[in-house]
Amino acid sequence: MASRVVGIGRDRDRLEQARILGAIDDLATDWATGLADADVIVVCTPVDRIAQDVIAAGQVRPDCPLITDAGSTKLTLVETIDDSSPRSLRFVGAHPIAGSEQSGVAHARPNLFLDRTCVLTPTERTPLAALERAREFWTAVGCRLIEMSPAEHDRALARTSHLPHVVASVLAAGVPPEWLPLAAGAFRDGTRVAAADPDLWSAILLQNRSELAGSVRDLVADLGRFLQVLAVGDPAQLRDWWLPGQDRRRQFDRIFRNGADAAD
Amino acid sequence: MASRVVGIGRDRDRLEQARILGAIDDLATDWATGLADADVIVVCTPVDRIAQDVIAAGQVRPDCPLITDAGSTKLTLVETIDDSSPRSLRFVGAHPIAGSEQSGVAHARPNLFLDRTCVLTPTERTPLAALERAREFWTAVGCRLIEMSPAEHDRALARTSHLPHVVASVLAAGVPPEWLPLAAGAFRDGTRVAAADPDLWSAILLQNRSELAGSVRDLVADLGRFLQVLAVGDPAQLRDWWLPGQDRRRQFDRIFRNGADAAD
Repeated sequence: MASRVVGIGRDRDRLEQARILGAIDDLATDWATGLADADVIVVCTPVDRIAQDVIAAGQVRPDCPLITDAGSTKLTLVETIDDSSPRSLRFVGAHPIAGSEQSGVAHARPNLFLDRTCVLTPTERTPLAALERAREFWTAVGCRLIEMSPAEHDRALARTSHLPHVVASVLAAGVPPEWLPLAAGAFRDGTRVAAADPDLWSAILLQNRSELAGSVRDLVADLGRFLQVLAVGDPAQLRDWWLPGQDRRRQFDRIFRNGADAAD
Repeated sequence: MASRVVGIGRDRDRLEQARILGAIDDLATDWATGLADADVIVVCTPVDRIAQDVIAAGQVRPDCPLITDAGSTKLTLVETIDDSSPRSLRFVGAHPIAGSEQSGVAHARPNLFLDRTCVLTPTERTPLAALERAREFWTAVGCRLIEMSPAEHDRALARTSHLPHVVASVLAAGVPPEWLPLAAGAFRDGTRVAAADPDLWSAILLQNRSELAGSVRDLVADLGRFLQVLAVGDPAQLRDWWLPGQDRRRQFDRIFRNGADAAD
């Protein structure tokens, strides 16, 4: 594990809070100071800033053995980095699937990455040595690794994360305030992530807009099929309609021990 | 509170288990025995059986001061009961918004109803004395009462419960098994109720099919508006699109203290 974690940001007060809470060992508000001795640079800025920040970090420390990120989308930013940086850049795209609808160091947890899936998205241009370093780093913080292309990552995450966020927002907005006391657990859980940060999430949705739009259209088609079954009014057909979702959810529960291990 | 709870069902073994677990004091598999001394009869059968069971209970005990139910839908069954039973029947429709995707007495909890919303749906035919008894009974088990018409109940619950169940099922079924390891918290929470019982839920969805179909169509229209905003590709517009859902979810959190008090 790292012997020393340096937090770099614009806001010294927030960084001081992170140091007091033990999330970082040292802090810096300028890149030259903060990156000076880094063996690993992890860019954790919003997805619409990651590409430029990775490129800038590579200019400050072209010799750094590993630059990686933690962005929830991959294709656009990895392509931008591949197209705009020297072949020597030791960058490996990563998405540790962890976090919650909360933000800020006050919600930090030391075991945030433990047993979480981390997707690495190497490309033809990724230096093999950097990929090895990335595997070591993300394994060392507790993650289970999966490797796939940036495009495949974005296709999957559109379904497993971005679409559920959009649906949570639509479900929440669709209940008038006077009916909120009538909301039950399905609403509570199904809308939790609607509370997430608007800037962060509008950036994520926009970066994956093509795959996300396809997922929304698929969902609308699936809802259309449900309406047809509902219109027929046959209990047996409706029961059959219910089963695939139940089955898939049970598969998920087996993978994540009733969801307890799934990322927040 | 009740001095004695008699569980009536078809399966003696299950009833014995309920008695051992302390959920009931006594048991019966025939109505005449089980209902003989009842001051309150609570019909907890699936929604597509409640009307006939209430009517049958009223025939066994026409003098019982209160017959109530715990069904997740109200209009169809209350209308059937109103149309098919003598004016003297002391029935009051009720929906305690509590429970979870789990079923069976092994998942029973003594505080299941504590601080949960219970909707009472009296009609023009409801005897006032029975309504008073229903208010006392559901308050005594811990519920906060709301009264509305059966139609209004079904309109609201379509949005606050039945639609979120349909969406959970569609979201779950839409993720291929190989992508399940990439599912995060939004998927975990948004699909939890997809694991619910198929018979129970196909009956609920069917009983409220008209309001539910309207809710699904509204959701599809809302998703269409999202696709338009996404297609424009303007971060500020997408951010504005996100805000109403965030705001409504925060209202919900204020009512239910971060959802901790919402029914499962």
